[in-house]
Amino acid sequence: MINDIILPEPTLRRLPWYLAYVEILKARQVEYVSSTQISRALNVDASQIAKDLSFLSLKGKTRIGYEVDALVETLAGFLGFRTSHKAYVFGAGSLGAALMRDSGLEKYGLEIVAGFDVNPEKVGTTVGNVPIYHIDSISEVMEAHPASIGILTVPVECAQETADIAIGEGIHAIWNFTPYRVKVAEGIVMANTSIYAHLALIYNRLNAQS
Amino acid sequence: MINDIILPEPTLRRLPWYLAYVEILKARQVEYVSSTQISRALNVDASQIAKDLSFLSLKGKTRIGYEVDALVETLAGFLGFRTSHKAYVFGAGSLGAALMRDSGLEKYGLEIVAGFDVNPEKVGTTVGNVPIYHIDSISEVMEAHPASIGILTVPVECAQETADIAIGEGIHAIWNFTPYRVKVAEGIVMANTSIYAHLALIYNRLNAQS
Repeated sequence: MINDIILPEPTLRRLPWYLAYVEILKARQVEYVSSTQISRALNVDASQIAKDLSFLSLKGKTRIGYEVDALVETLAGFLGFRTSHKAYVFGAGSLGAALMRDSGLEKYGLEIVAGFDVNPEKVGTTVGNVPIYHIDSISEVMEAHPASIGILTVPVECAQETADIAIGEGIHAIWNFTPYRVKVAEGIVMANTSIYAHLALIYNRLNAQS
Repeated sequence: MINDIILPEPTLRRLPWYLAYVEILKARQVEYVSSTQISRALNVDASQIAKDLSFLSLKGKTRIGYEVDALVETLAGFLGFRTSHKAYVFGAGSLGAALMRDSGLEKYGLEIVAGFDVNPEKVGTTVGNVPIYHIDSISEVMEAHPASIGILTVPVECAQETADIAIGEGIHAIWNFTPYRVKVAEGIVMANTSIYAHLALIYNRLNAQS
């Protein structure tokens, strides 16, 4: 069950919260859940929850609420977690290697099929079962094992160039873990996971307290 | 040089972009940079950049701009990346282990001193030089190797309970990688890195295209 509606970003941020919560209920063998219950558990307005879930054409029953099992499957399917999406990791350094070893991503529909690097000591090896190729062989790899998502974990000074190469070879989405603000053409999907900004936020708030 | 001003979140998000960019300039041995140049490179309004940098009491010189070396050091110091902050990882599963192995975090001031898990096969081992303890021994570990940041990579159903335990033992900041919306008391620093929401965003935008 894949959707082709462009969902608002705030909705896409909240839907995984609902999924996490109803998965817990499912594990506890709870059968039904109301938006009021989800609202209390997650501190999100109940009307907002009903609105978010209406994108999935899911409607709760009056007084009973949503069926937990159906909600888990519909949410996971709708979010794309039940479909395999092939990805490359660019930069087999410490973070890139960590992501290739993180088998948990597969449960969320992300299949890393290849890694790229320029370091001759890394090229030809595997990291967590993912083969590492030289960036110069990307055309051949794309032909043999195509992917649509490029995970960017290269050093900042190579971030833009690497993204350009990846997109030139047919990558449609860049998941950027570098602190560099990569520019992409319109139509290319861009998601920034700002690990370092989150660290800066934590440090700043901790310092302000002490 | 540590700041004790509470910075606005958008500023804390942008400062690491500036740092990444000026680090590239430094590597290229560029001596000065203007806010107009940063603005063009990063697609951020020049007046916004000047405003963000004014928090650091840094003022550019007319016509010349900011000294690159000083900007790198001041930004990195101000963001807390030059100070060591001790952290625990809760949950030595696939993502937790990946973070413990990611030596890159140390360059950004994060020192992971211990990991916690309940799996007897993991307790007593080390992951990327980080010793793994049973969550029940947290009091002793806190006494011997105190930390202020708790990185949460446990399964969703344990997220809230684990955060509660960590905070009860003196952890002041939770860096939450789980999709569960953990609740914390006022005064506790909370940062969510929503890996799964970013994946959902990528999948949704890719599907909408095809």
